[in-house]
Amino acid sequence: MPEGGNYDGDVGSLSAIEVAKALQESGTQTRHPLEVVIFQNEEGGLIGSRAISGELAAKELALISQSGKSIGEGIAFIGGDLTRLESVKRSKGDIAAYVEVHIEQGGTLERTKTDIGVVEGIVGIDRWDVTVEGFANHAGTTPMDQRHDAMLSAARFTLAVNRIVTSIPGRQVGTIGRIAAFPGAPNVIPGKVVLTLELRDLDAAKIRRLFDRIVAESKAIGAENGTTFAFNETNVHLPALTDHRIQAAIMRASHDLRLSTRIMPSGAGHDAQSMARLGPAGMIFVPSVGGISHSPKEFSRPEDIENGANVLLQTLLALDADFE
Amino acid sequence: MPEGGNYDGDVGSLSAIEVAKALQESGTQTRHPLEVVIFQNEEGGLIGSRAISGELAAKELALISQSGKSIGEGIAFIGGDLTRLESVKRSKGDIAAYVEVHIEQGGTLERTKTDIGVVEGIVGIDRWDVTVEGFANHAGTTPMDQRHDAMLSAARFTLAVNRIVTSIPGRQVGTIGRIAAFPGAPNVIPGKVVLTLELRDLDAAKIRRLFDRIVAESKAIGAENGTTFAFNETNVHLPALTDHRIQAAIMRASHDLRLSTRIMPSGAGHDAQSMARLGPAGMIFVPSVGGISHSPKEFSRPEDIENGANVLLQTLLALDADFE
Repeated sequence: MPEGGNYDGDVGSLSAIEVAKALQESGTQTRHPLEVVIFQNEEGGLIGSRAISGELAAKELALISQSGKSIGEGIAFIGGDLTRLESVKRSKGDIAAYVEVHIEQGGTLERTKTDIGVVEGIVGIDRWDVTVEGFANHAGTTPMDQRHDAMLSAARFTLAVNRIVTSIPGRQVGTIGRIAAFPGAPNVIPGKVVLTLELRDLDAAKIRRLFDRIVAESKAIGAENGTTFAFNETNVHLPALTDHRIQAAIMRASHDLRLSTRIMPSGAGHDAQSMARLGPAGMIFVPSVGGISHSPKEFSRPEDIENGANVLLQTLLALDADFE
Repeated sequence: MPEGGNYDGDVGSLSAIEVAKALQESGTQTRHPLEVVIFQNEEGGLIGSRAISGELAAKELALISQSGKSIGEGIAFIGGDLTRLESVKRSKGDIAAYVEVHIEQGGTLERTKTDIGVVEGIVGIDRWDVTVEGFANHAGTTPMDQRHDAMLSAARFTLAVNRIVTSIPGRQVGTIGRIAAFPGAPNVIPGKVVLTLELRDLDAAKIRRLFDRIVAESKAIGAENGTTFAFNETNVHLPALTDHRIQAAIMRASHDLRLSTRIMPSGAGHDAQSMARLGPAGMIFVPSVGGISHSPKEFSRPEDIENGANVLLQTLLALDADFE
């Protein structure tokens, strides 16, 4: 991705390759066939892994990405063969287990001095475009108490989202990432504000409950100064839970390697969520320094990455022994 | 102006022409020479009236306006002669009095069922670009209590501006008219928000006091989540007070015509503020239906406009009699 770092994705790919090499060098023969997969374009919508899970729709190939190329053109550009896309599909039950190492992309492991994150699931993501409608008017001649100021309502909404999301225990998050006021002049009271709302949690029902409270609150905010709120859902990703037996195997492997663990959700999307459609899946997180990701400043210490790869190796061996 | 109405400006120009015609038709000879002025490009920065008051700087002619033409090219385009710009300048004391009819552009006269607004002054306008700096991060992986969310601070700031501006009596107004969050993606916590702050009041010292309180509050807001605020002043128009004798003449003329009056500030800028640099100035407001202006929906009733023109006529006759 543009302005991305060198650890998001790469750490998992190289860990998997390293594990395969270690198995080969030690002459270890697994009971199950072992495959290393490097997925293409995770950031652009889990394109590679969704091709495997069968979720990638043909029409998505025509979508134009940030590069100016369509997804299909991009696949061809890096040497992919679009005529063989169907051949990579797997079916539910085709895999015995899927395990992925990844950087945390947050600061929890570092802050709590934990070596390994045992991912309990990948959060669901819901996004809405929210339109606040008021009435644009002259910023000099319209008294404060006569305004239907969409910007004021948008500000109250932003605080309400923060308050509602943090009002209950849990790791749910809510973000207003984009905003524009119209007409957008310093001397005109905004008649319209458009902003994005994103909610994430492991529990889809909790996301829905939070959203319902946000909608109710927006009605109260609108009633205060005669503005209205409209919500247009633009994106829904359902949460994907990881397999309990794989979680346990990761914890056991970490324990044996004297590494501390923490069960945690993944706030970011991952290829593991596509693979979880096909069979039991698990994820191993390693610390991100400063919790920084999607930035050239992204960094994970070599020793932490080594820990992740070692846990991956031991987890795979345990699963290979225990799983049918 | 684009998407403007048919009353802002025109009502004053036609009232002045009508008064001159009425004086001519009735054979009335004023003691003072009477001039009707139609100012060019009031919306673009009081260009015509500031050419007369000597405030128009030569470098402003090179500024590119919304039309794509420079101000100088625009003046030439409508038949003006740039080489004669100097010849229109007047000096302080050159005019005995200046009076202008204008639509209110706000809803106060209509709401209070008042016929004539006696303008006590034209508000000062201060504008700032406000930059809120936080730290952009992944909206999924960064817990709510670990965020330096510039958008959240911008929302608190917007509410603080509203609260501070409305916390003291008076007709001061404060507006956030433009806002943008960066990087501006639904899934990224904004690391930076840029917005405009505009404050208007008849009293420049009051504007300064409000601004000082806003700055103090912004520091407290920033301290809450580790964000910072920077203010860059982009625009200062000092308030211009109207002449008390002209205010009295307008009130007396309205009284004689059995019209109700209200002393009020003008929240919008007007050519009268340039002319006030040259001599005593006054303004007569007529009601705007619904307080709507700068919109094709702008409307003032014919009878209200007629009232304004009649008050202008009687005011001019009174000033002509009384003033030196």
